[in-house]
Amino acid sequence: MSVKIYYEDFALNDSRKTTGRTITDADIVLHAGQSGDFYPHHMDEEWCKTQPFKHRIAHGTLIFTVGVGLTAGVINEVAMTYGYERLRFIRPVYINDTISTTIIIKDKKDHKKPGYGIVTELLEVHNQHKELVMVCEHLLLVEKRNPDA
Amino acid sequence: MSVKIYYEDFALNDSRKTTGRTITDADIVLHAGQSGDFYPHHMDEEWCKTQPFKHRIAHGTLIFTVGVGLTAGVINEVAMTYGYERLRFIRPVYINDTISTTIIIKDKKDHKKPGYGIVTELLEVHNQHKELVMVCEHLLLVEKRNPDA
Amino acid sequence: MSVKIYYEDFALNDSRKTTGRTITDADIVLHAGQSGDFYPHHMDEEWCKTQPFKHRIAHGTLIFTVGVGLTAGVINEVAMTYGYERLRFIRPVYINDTISTTIIIKDKKDHKKPGYGIVTELLEVHNQHKELVMVCEHLLLVEKRNPDA
Amino acid sequence: MSVKIYYEDFALNDSRKTTGRTITDADIVLHAGQSGDFYPHHMDEEWCKTQPFKHRIAHGTLIFTVGVGLTAGVINEVAMTYGYERLRFIRPVYINDTISTTIIIKDKKDHKKPGYGIVTELLEVHNQHKELVMVCEHLLLVEKRNPDA
Amino acid sequence: MSVKIYYEDFALNDSRKTTGRTITDADIVLHAGQSGDFYPHHMDEEWCKTQPFKHRIAHGTLIFTVGVGLTAGVINEVAMTYGYERLRFIRPVYINDTISTTIIIKDKKDHKKPGYGIVTELLEVHNQHKELVMVCEHLLLVEKRNPDA
Amino acid sequence: MSVKIYYEDFALNDSRKTTGRTITDADIVLHAGQSGDFYPHHMDEEWCKTQPFKHRIAHGTLIFTVGVGLTAGVINEVAMTYGYERLRFIRPVYINDTISTTIIIKDKKDHKKPGYGIVTELLEVHNQHKELVMVCEHLLLVEKRNPDA
Repeated sequence: MSVKIYYEDFALNDSRKTTGRTITDADIVLHAGQSGDFYPHHMDEEWCKTQPFKHRIAHGTLIFTVGVGLTAGVINEVAMTYGYERLRFIRPVYINDTISTTIIIKDKKDHKKPGYGIVTELLEVHNQHKELVMVCEHLLLVEKRNPDA
Repeated sequence: MSVKIYYEDFALNDSRKTTGRTITDADIVLHAGQSGDFYPHHMDEEWCKTQPFKHRIAHGTLIFTVGVGLTAGVINEVAMTYGYERLRFIRPVYINDTISTTIIIKDKKDHKKPGYGIVTELLEVHNQHKELVMVCEHLLLVEKRNPDA
Repeated sequence: MSVKIYYEDFALNDSRKTTGRTITDADIVLHAGQSGDFYPHHMDEEWCKTQPFKHRIAHGTLIFTVGVGLTAGVINEVAMTYGYERLRFIRPVYINDTISTTIIIKDKKDHKKPGYGIVTELLEVHNQHKELVMVCEHLLLVEKRNPDA
Repeated sequence: MSVKIYYEDFALNDSRKTTGRTITDADIVLHAGQSGDFYPHHMDEEWCKTQPFKHRIAHGTLIFTVGVGLTAGVINEVAMTYGYERLRFIRPVYINDTISTTIIIKDKKDHKKPGYGIVTELLEVHNQHKELVMVCEHLLLVEKRNPDA
Repeated sequence: MSVKIYYEDFALNDSRKTTGRTITDADIVLHAGQSGDFYPHHMDEEWCKTQPFKHRIAHGTLIFTVGVGLTAGVINEVAMTYGYERLRFIRPVYINDTISTTIIIKDKKDHKKPGYGIVTELLEVHNQHKELVMVCEHLLLVEKRNPDA
Repeated sequence: MSVKIYYEDFALNDSRKTTGRTITDADIVLHAGQSGDFYPHHMDEEWCKTQPFKHRIAHGTLIFTVGVGLTAGVINEVAMTYGYERLRFIRPVYINDTISTTIIIKDKKDHKKPGYGIVTELLEVHNQHKELVMVCEHLLLVEKRNPDA
């Protein structure tokens, strides 16, 4: 469950897709409980009926948590998260929507730390209608196999 | 619990600080359960002892969830989240660290959608030692009081 | 998020209403898990079908927990809970009912502790049909601004 | 697991004591998540250090939930909860305190509904130091075996 | 809540049936979070639609946990779990199915440890349609009242 | 994340070991809440002090759930769980113990269903002291690549 994928091993435009996950009422209730965000957009079905989106919607931080979490699996021992850029919530996610994440290698560049590079993964989260609901860029700090290259 | 704070009402460099929240083992266990990320960095105290960080550390998505969640409270009816930029995890957060978030109005600019502007809040999450552990920019799409201005 | 509202500041018959919260299956499952109360009234849909109330109902302690919790928000530094009186569960709360709490200042009286008074808040919890489901009196021990008055 | 204990069967001053339950950090985290009450008294260990009580304390509604929940077990088919009176939180409950509940039959009286009586159970919750931490009266509406008596 | 039921007290073919428990989405979400098993059989409603079983199904370990947990209640001070045999998952359990457990004393035999015997309880878990969904044998190591017998 | 490993591909005595997982108070609290088993062995630290094992211990069903859950990861499309045998809880697991599971291919045999065989995996769960805490046999019903062999 643990591998070494070096900077040189990442190929631009390579992509993979995760399994899906149905976002349910329990996910939203647990996320409200973890984040402390009990806004009526997530917790009050009656109020939501009076709004354009009509039904309770998932927290943005929940979709980010699950969207990123779906990509976990194999540990790359020579990479670590550097940060995230351009996180956007494109469409609401409703209870019983099923989301999955597509990871696309979008960019590679040297890093100021010798022997390391930055790999940019584009994460696209889609719902069951193939609609994009969230997007962000995940920056990975990755060791080079050949530090002098 | 619901107010209207228009684009014009945001003043550059204004800041506020949230209450604190102690991150505990239960938070990490619940977050692993929500994200599906059971990497040993978060879940295996014995393995962590063999690593430079020595102890289990909180998931990045947990710190983002709580760091953002701490800022929730009053609903601004004329603003919505546009996205996040420059999310960085600066230092690990350990079990029993206490974090709080400082919100600083860092930038304002017009948006292409008439009558709206983008307000950039800088979110800085510190631990109990006043060390910065996470930082990001929160972009808010905010209605103008005077749409023609 | 922290204010000082003294005994003198409470005015009889003043009232406020909280946001709403939809009580879901996840709330009941989590409450059974916290309370240890797995009575079939809450956990066995098939048995409930044979009863007058027909469907699983929320625990009384869950409605008290959420009904009181909805009133949390701003911390009053000069008040603390003294106790609760006349707690009654008037009607069952079903899965997907949405409840909110109305707080009414019902009584004020001096307390034996010099410089303090007791403020009685009437808490009324209603469902989405404006039916009363729970009621109780919340006794607050509140500092006087003018202790000699 | 289901019995019939009629009004006539309750004897004044009869008492029983439940098993114990250790209140842990996980209980408080889950209760904050259920109630929406994230006050620093429960969630911010650093702030608590500056207060007279020194450490995070359990929510009152958590102690009520567990204190009452501990009494659950056998279902009495001919009784139902009528309400609670005189709920008082006497001492704080800290993480790792162990509480148990003593139930004492304190009062019996006829009810206006023919064939029913009200039984008052005094619930006393103690910690591991035999200190009283919570007390309340539980009113039970109980069927009479002999409705004409 | 604590009794002594000795080896001699168990009678072959004696049986009892527990109360029921409705298995809900929240149970599955919490169980995925506890077990770390996020297989699409349990978490991805869209993928399940393409499979013969059509809908998300409960984890086997969840049904074992609840099926065994339902039998808890009174503590037998002179017995302890020795192990389980022949655990089989006969039919899938779907969201909103209600399960209960029947316990049948199936076998008794001496144990090598003097003064103890092994009692085999057959646990049968049925759904609301009286279909068997899980079965296993629970081996109990039980003290003899008369160790010399 | 999905592979096809046929009956013929399993080699006797092949083994693999999972990552570790620290069992914490939160795991036990959540498992009590899921199973409904609040026995003092798991929930009452004060009572445990009076017992030979001295401290709260994890539920057997929790160790089974996590011990099996740790083996999840890659989905084998041509195999399904047939059942479990010889489940034994050898030693107690305490809060903050770290467990991992070793999977050893122990037996293979034809199954009455044509084109299928039964593979027996021995699951051994050890704690951080390399002590065996749980053991069981996992029976897998596996498709043959060559059904006529």
